[in-house]
Amino acid sequence: MADQLTKRADDYAQWYNDLVLKADLAEHSDVRGCMVIKPHGYAIWERMQRALDDMFKATGHVNAYFPLFIPKSYLAKEASHVEGFAKECAVVTHYRLKSDPVHGVVVDPEAKLEEELIVRPTSETIIWNTYRGWIKSYRDLPLLINQWANVVRWEMRTRLFLRTAEFLWQEGHTAHASKEEAIAETERMLEVYRVFAEEWLAMPVIKGIKTASERFAGAEETYCIEAMMQDGKALQAGTSHFLGQNFAKAFDVLFTTKENKQELVWATSWGVSTRLMGALIMTHSDDHGLVLPPKLAPIQVAVVPIARNEEQLAALHAYIAPVLSALRAKGISVKFDDDDTKKPGWKFAEYEFKGCPVRIAIGPRDMENGTVEVARRDTMEKQVMQVADLADKVEHLLEAIQSNLYQKALAMREASTRAVNSYEEFKVEIEKGGFLLAHWDGTPETEARVKEETKATIRCIPLEGDTTPGQCMVTGKPSARRVIFARAY
Amino acid sequence: MADQLTKRADDYAQWYNDLVLKADLAEHSDVRGCMVIKPHGYAIWERMQRALDDMFKATGHVNAYFPLFIPKSYLAKEASHVEGFAKECAVVTHYRLKSDPVHGVVVDPEAKLEEELIVRPTSETIIWNTYRGWIKSYRDLPLLINQWANVVRWEMRTRLFLRTAEFLWQEGHTAHASKEEAIAETERMLEVYRVFAEEWLAMPVIKGIKTASERFAGAEETYCIEAMMQDGKALQAGTSHFLGQNFAKAFDVLFTTKENKQELVWATSWGVSTRLMGALIMTHSDDHGLVLPPKLAPIQVAVVPIARNEEQLAALHAYIAPVLSALRAKGISVKFDDDDTKKPGWKFAEYEFKGCPVRIAIGPRDMENGTVEVARRDTMEKQVMQVADLADKVEHLLEAIQSNLYQKALAMREASTRAVNSYEEFKVEIEKGGFLLAHWDGTPETEARVKEETKATIRCIPLEGDTTPGQCMVTGKPSARRVIFARAY
Repeated sequence: MADQLTKRADDYAQWYNDLVLKADLAEHSDVRGCMVIKPHGYAIWERMQRALDDMFKATGHVNAYFPLFIPKSYLAKEASHVEGFAKECAVVTHYRLKSDPVHGVVVDPEAKLEEELIVRPTSETIIWNTYRGWIKSYRDLPLLINQWANVVRWEMRTRLFLRTAEFLWQEGHTAHASKEEAIAETERMLEVYRVFAEEWLAMPVIKGIKTASERFAGAEETYCIEAMMQDGKALQAGTSHFLGQNFAKAFDVLFTTKENKQELVWATSWGVSTRLMGALIMTHSDDHGLVLPPKLAPIQVAVVPIARNEEQLAALHAYIAPVLSALRAKGISVKFDDDDTKKPGWKFAEYEFKGCPVRIAIGPRDMENGTVEVARRDTMEKQVMQVADLADKVEHLLEAIQSNLYQKALAMREASTRAVNSYEEFKVEIEKGGFLLAHWDGTPETEARVKEETKATIRCIPLEGDTTPGQCMVTGKPSARRVIFARAY
Repeated sequence: MADQLTKRADDYAQWYNDLVLKADLAEHSDVRGCMVIKPHGYAIWERMQRALDDMFKATGHVNAYFPLFIPKSYLAKEASHVEGFAKECAVVTHYRLKSDPVHGVVVDPEAKLEEELIVRPTSETIIWNTYRGWIKSYRDLPLLINQWANVVRWEMRTRLFLRTAEFLWQEGHTAHASKEEAIAETERMLEVYRVFAEEWLAMPVIKGIKTASERFAGAEETYCIEAMMQDGKALQAGTSHFLGQNFAKAFDVLFTTKENKQELVWATSWGVSTRLMGALIMTHSDDHGLVLPPKLAPIQVAVVPIARNEEQLAALHAYIAPVLSALRAKGISVKFDDDDTKKPGWKFAEYEFKGCPVRIAIGPRDMENGTVEVARRDTMEKQVMQVADLADKVEHLLEAIQSNLYQKALAMREASTRAVNSYEEFKVEIEKGGFLLAHWDGTPETEARVKEETKATIRCIPLEGDTTPGQCMVTGKPSARRVIFARAY
């Protein structure tokens, strides 16, 4: 399999596509822009969902479900929101098909909707229209709700996981009595995303604020986490928006304060999507195939017996069974692969290609020696280990792999992040990829010019790091601090 | 709250609607036929999902995700399927809106799709079109895949959870090398549904086969589980379909057998939906509000402290803390409700109305006596218990409640199930509700006549029970065995 994979150095984009398809993560469907998430891909996404969901609940959020369809007029209620989302969307105009003697099945013209319905591209409008009925008093606040859902944004150029017409995501929508509380929530959820990205995906991210031109349509402020892929391009991995009172105003959501006044409610929304699958792949995988951080691997440890006959297979199973039980007792997902329609060599290649973190091989000679062969996917190293305290050693190995993947990605990002001090230098450096820390005068005009001339965008104004003021690399005007420029997915 | 609830005896349908709304389970959205599932309702659905998902995985299934949209022509490929599903569905015809100086936002006529897309009413067609690429040889079989998704069937008359235009469900779609294996899978999943309904929902069900006229559009055989609601009406709680080779034929899905022949693949599909929320409510709840089986209750035990001041509250918390820890260690979900904006009496009413199985009240006098007051929701009984071994006692109480709810529902169903031997008797008995076991000649004509004249349908031909042949109650023709007639949701 790995030999059919384009090398990253030859064509990174093709490597990515090859890998998504050949590792059975996803494929294009016959429906333009919509993907099929295959079982191996979905199993990874399920692990992401579970971890995030636990983190949302630990921070006091509950789940709910809102309609797939949004009346066209709702989208138009928040002026900048409609600009951002009404353009490319799926529009339902009819509610019935009928048989036609000539054309088979046709849309029934009698069944035209009075008002067209939009398949949700995001749910602020339908949710805030609902919140109007739920929020009467300060006692109803805060409202901390999340939704797991599919959304549709009609995209002409799609890439599996990274940009698809339909994708899966979670969208948090919270309502608060004060501006301060809403901003604190926005920041809290950004931090949840950072922890999730770093501790689960083993993907280092930078927390920051988007410039006005990159802000979510309808937000007062968009916070984000930005990651660097192996090709030096940036990927926005999650966003958390402070929406001010914009949606409360558009949908008339007022509450009675403790002082018995009527005030508009403050809002946030925040989301991550199946795009994280693309981020995961491009952060860790290599020319041998997928590399998965142990915490998200559907099978963390694969055990491949090398047996000539059923008797040997049974003996090998008995030999390793205590280790399997001990690993399972630690909550580690283990597969003893006794499928006799496939040869061991084929299985080794398969587990390697699909990113299984640890593979254990056992044969008759191992049984005699009290050993096993352990291969780790991240470094491709193999070593012979005693079977005696294997479960503990494997547990530590999984932790070491998780940590190593993070450290490797962090080192890569640090090596590809540098300060530049002139626009000439910038133009040269941006061709090499990576994050460029540069001074910017804070105007959308300069931002647009840089984008036009170099295809680089401001990924974020970092929340941390060097805050020394300076002069814009393009205009020489004052700059409050360096921001991060990069080309991005 | 309970005093605002219509009594079941007065108007069962109104009681149901009141309860769904007032217990914060769901509400109608502004989008015709689409519901909003509120946090309390969604938390119950999440527990159902988790339990079912675990059972699907334990039987070897994996999850995947297929597109929301189905090209119109796909629906037409399987003749009887299109008849069943193409009629009432949401049709996407355009992919863009644009600004209009007069009308605000309008559908862009330039952005018309070449082929209309249908929002999936069920996914057989898009999935079997995908399976064509996945199945080449017997080695690729069986393919055991499930999808959690939203689906849309345009319904004119909707009822929360029971019949909505958009609903949430799971749909299993499996592919097999032989007819026998596919039938075995159909029956296996029916049994999974039975176990889930009886052990989790505490809802007794009858397994059976649908008559030809009630079969899923495109199936060779539809298996079902049927439950009886408290008003004596039947509710189909889950279906499992043996699809034969119909979809393989429609979508050209062939595989190479071990003998190197090309054969059509055999299929099954099976699903349960948020309709189960309606079944759950109508099986157990009463005039005091919701009653939840402990296994599906988001909060299984609520502890309400009765304190005059913060000092007392802290003392009560310290008093009960070891019990809270012990319950949590058993995996029991407990809430210590110290919200000081609400009075204890209000909280008692709230937990009762929302179906919390066990409520514990503690006050200063309990502390002196080493006791607590325990109220169980199913029987509304209260008793004073010693705090000493409370966690164990509460654990057993939860088990007893789960079991009691099942037994009560079973007794109700048994009391409302009887054999009838003439059509005259049938017409009288059907007005009283319940399941009528009657002989039927096996023809769709007789079935249609009974439906027309009495509004009763054949719920199923039971897989178990009395198999004595007889004579059709309507025509006197031979009958293989009694079938179950009832009016249904």
